[in-house]
Amino acid sequence: MTDSPEYKKKRAFYDNLLTIYGRKPVLEALQDHSINIYKLHLADSNKSGGIIEQINSLAEQRGIEVQWHNRQALSRISRNSKQDQGVAADIQLDQHQSVSEFIQQQQTNTPYRLLALDSITNPQNLGMIIRSASAGHIDGIIIPRKGCAALSPLVIKASVGTVFKATLIHCETLQQALEQFQQQQATICTLSSHAKDSLFDYQCEQSIIYVLGNETDGVSQAVSQLSDQQLAIPMNNGVESLNVAVTAALIAFVKPQPE
Amino acid sequence: MTDSPEYKKKRAFYDNLLTIYGRKPVLEALQDHSINIYKLHLADSNKSGGIIEQINSLAEQRGIEVQWHNRQALSRISRNSKQDQGVAADIQLDQHQSVSEFIQQQQTNTPYRLLALDSITNPQNLGMIIRSASAGHIDGIIIPRKGCAALSPLVIKASVGTVFKATLIHCETLQQALEQFQQQQATICTLSSHAKDSLFDYQCEQSIIYVLGNETDGVSQAVSQLSDQQLAIPMNNGVESLNVAVTAALIAFVKPQPE
Repeated sequence: MTDSPEYKKKRAFYDNLLTIYGRKPVLEALQDHSINIYKLHLADSNKSGGIIEQINSLAEQRGIEVQWHNRQALSRISRNSKQDQGVAADIQLDQHQSVSEFIQQQQTNTPYRLLALDSITNPQNLGMIIRSASAGHIDGIIIPRKGCAALSPLVIKASVGTVFKATLIHCETLQQALEQFQQQQATICTLSSHAKDSLFDYQCEQSIIYVLGNETDGVSQAVSQLSDQQLAIPMNNGVESLNVAVTAALIAFVKPQPE
Repeated sequence: MTDSPEYKKKRAFYDNLLTIYGRKPVLEALQDHSINIYKLHLADSNKSGGIIEQINSLAEQRGIEVQWHNRQALSRISRNSKQDQGVAADIQLDQHQSVSEFIQQQQTNTPYRLLALDSITNPQNLGMIIRSASAGHIDGIIIPRKGCAALSPLVIKASVGTVFKATLIHCETLQQALEQFQQQQATICTLSSHAKDSLFDYQCEQSIIYVLGNETDGVSQAVSQLSDQQLAIPMNNGVESLNVAVTAALIAFVKPQPE
């Protein structure tokens, strides 16, 4: 019964909700009409007037359901009582999906380019990666539920709001997700300073997934075992590595070169 | 008399010293033998043993002069008594130079590519820019003495030490420096989302200077009036701009394409 189509639909709906919190982030989301907001949550301890008044009336104008809670209930929703400032909102992320959903939507003859995040823990980096990937030639970002930074206000800020519009592909572990993609003939690429092939010259006719590793430890062993292709970014002056968000941007803006 | 060759040489020497502070940054600099350290400064209030012992003995091994000061004198050297932890070091930056020095060293027929920083105030961004520029195809970074973040421990950390090896070209105001470069026939480029030409396609046979503007306000008016060429970074999904350090990296890794 839990697998009924009705249940699946409901689960997918709630899976695609992102709860954001804090007065300014929520206000900014309300002001951007391209962002779908499912529900606004307010603590009844909030003093009326000022920004709370503005948030409340914007929600009314947009016909968004407003729920009032006591302080404790609100912190259960925001999961961050220290920073929620008595305000939270559930955002509907229509571009966020599961691996299977993403794969189903692809057309067989159109290769896609994805980023896969293997334990990106710095919110600033995560936000910058989402921003650059959205601006560049990337069709989606695979983010495992565990190990990566949560989509917190810091991430939203560094992403300059692109997190609400980016195609984010959620999964439990990256290893499982990459195995699913490999079954679809996608090529898994990892970056290595020792690799022979350069990121900038590499041509691939298949779909391609670029794995970005943790800021300190790089790509985990479980994931690097799945790598089909290693690529190097050639560097001058003995520099050994680049910031992970910079690497993501270089990948995102490498032009898929026509033959 | 103040313009004697002897005086000029002395002044150039002191201009190229960067005082860093904090126990970890100084220790790391001492451990890297490719970094020239002119002098180590220690507060006599430091407890002996531990990291101070390690710093002191590394300096002795490397034959670096050690000066002991009282706490107050040390803060005058570090200019940051809150964060110096009683330790400072003068680093000799042989790659740091003035606009005239840089221009003198260039060969007429070899065009160079520079970044010019117009009020980059975030230390994290500044460090990342230096790191990416060093790794990519950039021959120097023009940093005005005023308006940009100081070369603080935060910058050094974000640059992963590349600040000690990068070719940094110091000037008073960016406007003056750019005018000097224009007299050498260098092309000044600014980035604009409205520009017709793309950064990735633009070909230029002359030396070229890419100006990066402030994180919030972009390129200042005085500087944008000097722009010879506007370039755009084409972006997808309605994204309007990129982080400035990401932009710097894309510029640094745009390959100078052979004709």
